[in-house]
Amino acid sequence: MSPSAVRSRHAGFFRSRWVRVPNGVEELDPAALAPGFRAAGVASGLKEGGEPDVGIVACDAADVISALLLTCNALAAAPVCVCRRECDLGAIRAAVVNSGNANAATGEPGYRDALAMRDGAAAALGVAPASVAVAETGVIGMPLPTELVLPGIDEAAAALSPRGAREFTRAIMTTDKGPKSCTVRAGGVTVSAQAKGAGMIEPGFATMLCFVQTDALVDDPDAALRAAVAGSFERITVDGQMSTNDTVLLQATGEAGVAPPPGLLDAVLLQLALEMVADGEGATRVGRIEVREAATGDEAERVARAIANSPLVKTALYGRDPNWGRIAQAAGMALAGESLDGLAEGAIDAAELAGEEPEAEIAIALGRGKAQAHVFFSDLGHEYIRVNAEYRT
Amino acid sequence: MSPSAVRSRHAGFFRSRWVRVPNGVEELDPAALAPGFRAAGVASGLKEGGEPDVGIVACDAADVISALLLTCNALAAAPVCVCRRECDLGAIRAAVVNSGNANAATGEPGYRDALAMRDGAAAALGVAPASVAVAETGVIGMPLPTELVLPGIDEAAAALSPRGAREFTRAIMTTDKGPKSCTVRAGGVTVSAQAKGAGMIEPGFATMLCFVQTDALVDDPDAALRAAVAGSFERITVDGQMSTNDTVLLQATGEAGVAPPPGLLDAVLLQLALEMVADGEGATRVGRIEVREAATGDEAERVARAIANSPLVKTALYGRDPNWGRIAQAAGMALAGESLDGLAEGAIDAAELAGEEPEAEIAIALGRGKAQAHVFFSDLGHEYIRVNAEYRT
Repeated sequence: MSPSAVRSRHAGFFRSRWVRVPNGVEELDPAALAPGFRAAGVASGLKEGGEPDVGIVACDAADVISALLLTCNALAAAPVCVCRRECDLGAIRAAVVNSGNANAATGEPGYRDALAMRDGAAAALGVAPASVAVAETGVIGMPLPTELVLPGIDEAAAALSPRGAREFTRAIMTTDKGPKSCTVRAGGVTVSAQAKGAGMIEPGFATMLCFVQTDALVDDPDAALRAAVAGSFERITVDGQMSTNDTVLLQATGEAGVAPPPGLLDAVLLQLALEMVADGEGATRVGRIEVREAATGDEAERVARAIANSPLVKTALYGRDPNWGRIAQAAGMALAGESLDGLAEGAIDAAELAGEEPEAEIAIALGRGKAQAHVFFSDLGHEYIRVNAEYRT
Repeated sequence: MSPSAVRSRHAGFFRSRWVRVPNGVEELDPAALAPGFRAAGVASGLKEGGEPDVGIVACDAADVISALLLTCNALAAAPVCVCRRECDLGAIRAAVVNSGNANAATGEPGYRDALAMRDGAAAALGVAPASVAVAETGVIGMPLPTELVLPGIDEAAAALSPRGAREFTRAIMTTDKGPKSCTVRAGGVTVSAQAKGAGMIEPGFATMLCFVQTDALVDDPDAALRAAVAGSFERITVDGQMSTNDTVLLQATGEAGVAPPPGLLDAVLLQLALEMVADGEGATRVGRIEVREAATGDEAERVARAIANSPLVKTALYGRDPNWGRIAQAAGMALAGESLDGLAEGAIDAAELAGEEPEAEIAIALGRGKAQAHVFFSDLGHEYIRVNAEYRT
């Protein structure tokens, strides 16, 4: 690796003060995938303007292990249903993705189309169909133009490259302002990751997708991914909405022979999650609410989410208003039927709402116990309204 | 009553197509209270600009019966706590109210101040302290200037009039664009009602308050009020937020000797509730989502609220976008972990979102059972952001 490929800490990927980066992490060129993986992104014509819209990420080795987490929205999109029913989630070798059409609420024809994508990619790659995951993102309720997507899949399969992560990342973007990806190296292992979206759901159903590849030895990928997601994508909200298409895939070859340093996967996913919040359509600031002294973890979580999703708190973040009363009210609503009379003076710290920093930290101590929870959230401003009210189906 | 006091149906109080008005309802001048009641509103100096800010509504007779419903926010304001702990909720003879200061999150001093308001009103009226309810609305976390409010209470008590409802209504307003009140007569009984606010909570903690007086014979005021509130104030949302101060009071003298016609109280409260939604700060349209074919009533309710509170649906209402996908996604989120695969084609009717009418009706049939629920909600537009982001504590 040439020195020029190493980015400095502050100008690089790990930008947020809320991400704890393990010591000795090198940031590599995000175009490069972890050893043993290749990717590509091509323009099939799904997106107007000739932007890339079909991507594949694939592992060279057959004995890769994986974990795949999917939305639990009751109206899960066709690709989510295909993954659940037709794929071997612990041994996903490749993922095929399109952007521009979510293939959600498309019924049986949609399911067949998602399956055709999966089978087309498997055939082009020469791998077992059950080892290929499929993900889609974009408008919902529209039939998928398979006459565009299927040739795109063949083209992407032919273009796979160890340095194809940039094109792959572009091919999964929808309303993202920029690519969200990284390749990092620490403790003898490499982790590359590509993501898109802005929270549970962004305007226009801009689902969150995230693909992570590593050559590290991961004993229990499902447990590792669940833990990392619990501390990252499950900690963020843009508009409190859950997408029909959310998908997170972790693939690990074990070729490096060592486990990833503690915290590395968590740091990568948290920074990507925070980029989704910061990139929430119309967002100008990211807030972090920490709820302390709750009676239980569930209670802390409930209160944190109520505050993070309150439009009154979100507009206060936008308007630089240290309005602690709105935080108190949202906490009281989350605990409706109980009593917060014991809330001490100074129990709410809302000062950073008033600052000019892009990241604002607020806190509330409930005085009811020892549990705590935190949630990251975007502000709510004019741009959100403009984008959402002017977006037309 | 002079003919000029009768308003026509369409120009008058009952404006919404969603309110079923019993036959033979006369609309009277809303300045006039139901027989046996008097009210007043005065300017104590709490509100800048000399607007009325202290009001009293009182029953002449000692044997009035009542029902009082209060917010279940865990951070209930001082007046709410005083009502709960120190008042005879079934025999409330008078209510004393101020606007401009919510007396919420004000600790023990705030409690003492609310109690002083209650006791001051009782002394001025010459009635038992436990028969006086207290309600407050306005900014939270600020000490109540009792040196202004207490003299205002004496002044209001001295100004009580059978035609004082207009001043009382003005004295309870905060960010309301106009007064919300009516006096109606049907089946030999009169009902007068005064309200303020816009939903569970409006920007700036514009709590909802509602006071209803009648000379009708109401057997079980608590049951009657709960039923009417369940079909009105519990059916609306502006921003999904629950106030620290919400209060609804029903007082009935029984002097008329007959029960109110079926549906009269419900119609009055529903129209007032709809005015709150229409007057939600920044609101330009009111939506009604009806969820049909749910497995249970709880499920129908959960789905209806998820749709009504979705910022994606609310911006679609604002932007006249018949975006059925956003309705589907919110329903799927409300039923996370279950399956909505059975959602039939045409199960979502979002056409009225695109219309120019101020009231838009949308519907979704879940295909899971026979239960249904509906919720009224405001849209989300630029004015909401402007008001909330520019409001400063």
